[in-house]
Amino acid sequence: MTVATVLPAGVSESDVTKAIEAFADALGADAVMTDPEALREFRDPYAYKQSDEWDASAAVSPTTTEQVQAVVRIANEHGVPLWTFGQGRNNTYGGPAPRVRGSVIVNLREMNRILEINEELCYVVVEPGVRWQDLSDALHDAGGRTWPSIPDLGWGSVVGNTLEYGRGYTPYGDHASNVCGMEVVLPDGEVMRTGMGAQTDNQAWHVYQHSYGPSLDKLFMQSNFGIVTRMGVWTMPRPDVYASCWGTWQSEDALEAVVEALRRLMLDGIIRNYPVMGRGIGVFDERPFIDPKDPTWRLRFALYGREQIVDAHWAIVEEELGSIPGVEIGLRRYAGTDRDGPLGHDDKVQCGISEMELMDLFKTPYGEDTGHLDFSPIGPLTGKDVVATYRYMRALYDRHDWPYLGGLLLAPRSVIHITTTFFDPNDEEKTREVYAAYDEMVLELAKINKVPYRTNIHHMDLVGDQLDFNDHIQRRVNERLKDALDPNGILSPGKQGIWPANRR
Amino acid sequence: MTVATVLPAGVSESDVTKAIEAFADALGADAVMTDPEALREFRDPYAYKQSDEWDASAAVSPTTTEQVQAVVRIANEHGVPLWTFGQGRNNTYGGPAPRVRGSVIVNLREMNRILEINEELCYVVVEPGVRWQDLSDALHDAGGRTWPSIPDLGWGSVVGNTLEYGRGYTPYGDHASNVCGMEVVLPDGEVMRTGMGAQTDNQAWHVYQHSYGPSLDKLFMQSNFGIVTRMGVWTMPRPDVYASCWGTWQSEDALEAVVEALRRLMLDGIIRNYPVMGRGIGVFDERPFIDPKDPTWRLRFALYGREQIVDAHWAIVEEELGSIPGVEIGLRRYAGTDRDGPLGHDDKVQCGISEMELMDLFKTPYGEDTGHLDFSPIGPLTGKDVVATYRYMRALYDRHDWPYLGGLLLAPRSVIHITTTFFDPNDEEKTREVYAAYDEMVLELAKINKVPYRTNIHHMDLVGDQLDFNDHIQRRVNERLKDALDPNGILSPGKQGIWPANRR
Repeated sequence: MTVATVLPAGVSESDVTKAIEAFADALGADAVMTDPEALREFRDPYAYKQSDEWDASAAVSPTTTEQVQAVVRIANEHGVPLWTFGQGRNNTYGGPAPRVRGSVIVNLREMNRILEINEELCYVVVEPGVRWQDLSDALHDAGGRTWPSIPDLGWGSVVGNTLEYGRGYTPYGDHASNVCGMEVVLPDGEVMRTGMGAQTDNQAWHVYQHSYGPSLDKLFMQSNFGIVTRMGVWTMPRPDVYASCWGTWQSEDALEAVVEALRRLMLDGIIRNYPVMGRGIGVFDERPFIDPKDPTWRLRFALYGREQIVDAHWAIVEEELGSIPGVEIGLRRYAGTDRDGPLGHDDKVQCGISEMELMDLFKTPYGEDTGHLDFSPIGPLTGKDVVATYRYMRALYDRHDWPYLGGLLLAPRSVIHITTTFFDPNDEEKTREVYAAYDEMVLELAKINKVPYRTNIHHMDLVGDQLDFNDHIQRRVNERLKDALDPNGILSPGKQGIWPANRR
Repeated sequence: MTVATVLPAGVSESDVTKAIEAFADALGADAVMTDPEALREFRDPYAYKQSDEWDASAAVSPTTTEQVQAVVRIANEHGVPLWTFGQGRNNTYGGPAPRVRGSVIVNLREMNRILEINEELCYVVVEPGVRWQDLSDALHDAGGRTWPSIPDLGWGSVVGNTLEYGRGYTPYGDHASNVCGMEVVLPDGEVMRTGMGAQTDNQAWHVYQHSYGPSLDKLFMQSNFGIVTRMGVWTMPRPDVYASCWGTWQSEDALEAVVEALRRLMLDGIIRNYPVMGRGIGVFDERPFIDPKDPTWRLRFALYGREQIVDAHWAIVEEELGSIPGVEIGLRRYAGTDRDGPLGHDDKVQCGISEMELMDLFKTPYGEDTGHLDFSPIGPLTGKDVVATYRYMRALYDRHDWPYLGGLLLAPRSVIHITTTFFDPNDEEKTREVYAAYDEMVLELAKINKVPYRTNIHHMDLVGDQLDFNDHIQRRVNERLKDALDPNGILSPGKQGIWPANRR
């Protein structure tokens, strides 16, 4: 067993060594990785390539809930910080890399069982290593009577994406809102089931989202309060007809009107999925593209249901959205059973067919190593606010002569303004400039009372600092909960700016 | 100032007296009630009428968040337990009465402002004293462009009902799932805003349900972790057409088929509201009734939207529900703007017109004082489970020769089997028999791995005891959170079986 060459601040080499030995005893030597070369796989892929700032001391790969419990107990015994991921694929937010250098990575990729597919009640139960691609395939193989909501890339963890408030594009696209019942290993190694899972064998665990008493599911989202080892996720029944719809326009007047129309259509239950609109980047009308000079705004959304319902909904969409000056709309219609029909990424992603096409697009600017940093504030879904925020953010990019590349994720009442900057992480100067510009953007955005809905390991404290109400009371409460559940501060210290007592 | 005559266990008369004096100093003498006769108003109305088991020592009526903070700080200083309610009107669960005898009641009825009505983004912000009736009227007066989801009785608190996982009957009828952004006074007197309210003046507070970091809203539901002093609640846009629909049948075969059809119709987005079906009691087809001998099952649900959508949805309902042997269905159709058309309770309650008609019905068995005890387990929404659970519960009532009076609250994947027993709380023997039978039913139900979704102050520990997974880990975690947030154990001790360290 190689000894760790990177140590977490405040932990002795002897403690780390003893922990690594104990991990190997509990999980088997093959499940413990300490070779510095091999551990590079778990660096932040979009940080400067030569930096060792985000290195882990070791990585362990438990395969069962019991092994996760063992890992946590050993970490407590030796005071070694852990950092967990399901797949660690969300590279713009740090990928698999730990917030605290020298943490031991808990790699959950080997916990990859789909424990239940329930086509009657429309849910699945998955372990944290299950990828969107795995889920999409498994539901298809089971008969295809239910569809998952998936994000753009199929390689990520269902549990990981969902816990970070990630989004997909069916009517179940607000993934965090469609979680029902978790199993969680707490920082002291105990295992808890949330919701009705509090009663052994209760059949409502994955169908009823509340508890007897407080409901704890969302305590474990964007959080370092526990390791989720299984999760219930709601799926949608396959519709008779699926229509993949698109729209285009150019002016800000049209943008404002489109947002107003889409909000009404969503609130009225006509558009039930989660639309995306973008400028300069995206996959719309079957065409993936990055083109900062293209002045066109593009929109995708979907309709689902029996044929006569989709027809009636489309007629209303034409009336309310198609009538806006400068707006063109269209649709491609498929039978729900037709899984070979949808060819473009936009058609596939809104009906739960998972793939990796967008990854190729993201490599076009600087080749294989291309990095990108997403800056993604949340705001209300009104035409006025969307236009104002777009202008404000565009001006921030203009300061650096960087293009505005935006993809807006719509919900009925809110919108996430995802914007991105591409760079080559082999270029130290440019890489540092991009991360510094993000700092600046966070501070500028706070002036209009907005913050990103999530952020990467580099900026977690800074974003947390903007949440200032009553002397940062929300963070102070999170710290109290953290200390109550994790007195030794071993689980993902610093995640989302929440530090345990021993590292504050 | 009268001195308290009832003291909470473990608290000295001197401490209670000092606390009461301090409450009067902070809130004004008029806001503090100690007269034992007057305090009878806050007894459990359905406990045995002569019992003083559920008496409070005093009641305070804060009017602002700052006053709530003052109350909590004083309670901490003197170690006096508090018990809060918004309106205290849910009589079957204990009404306003405290779990711990001698607690000081925090009566929030005077905090009754509707702070915001947003018809564009479809939400309201309310204080805990706002009643459903107030909200229904205020939205009407504001122009009626948005509707609230309301429960059957208009006198309850919007915040109180929602925090207890109460239900309504529009598409927003799962009230707890449509909360967005709270202000909470913590047990130490600090004030927190949840979600994006963590940033001062963030405009996404009431439109985006997640936080940066863990989301804490549901930590304050069925909970004694804080006093919610304001809450964002989502509303629905007024539809062009509203159809109040009904169904009837008699056999268990039809019951099973109806449940299967309704689940599919809900999951497909055809029926978007929360249907109710019942036997022996209810308000269906405009007729409120209690008739244990009537073998008919009755159903109500609703359709909303533009005219052509409601037409198309109804045609599908006729095809899938109306085709079941023995099932009759029908509908009454109204313009969304027609607030005088809906006359029966079933028509009104599914379009957000609040009233008290059901209260008269509940008084028919034993006159003005009639009590009823609801027993309300949660289960999965499958035809087989609904029929099996109905039979099982009916057999439990048969043991006592009591009729089965059931109202089932449906959601797309789950169902709450509300059953009820009427009694005269002036009759000590019968009253005690009813509460004892509830104990027995909880234990019998646990044998088939079910528990009530909420319960009254008499049975909170017993129901909590059934949540046995991993040596009651969910309760043990709740206790750790309780101790972290409320080290002096002053806030609603014992609620939902969660006791602070000093009373465990």
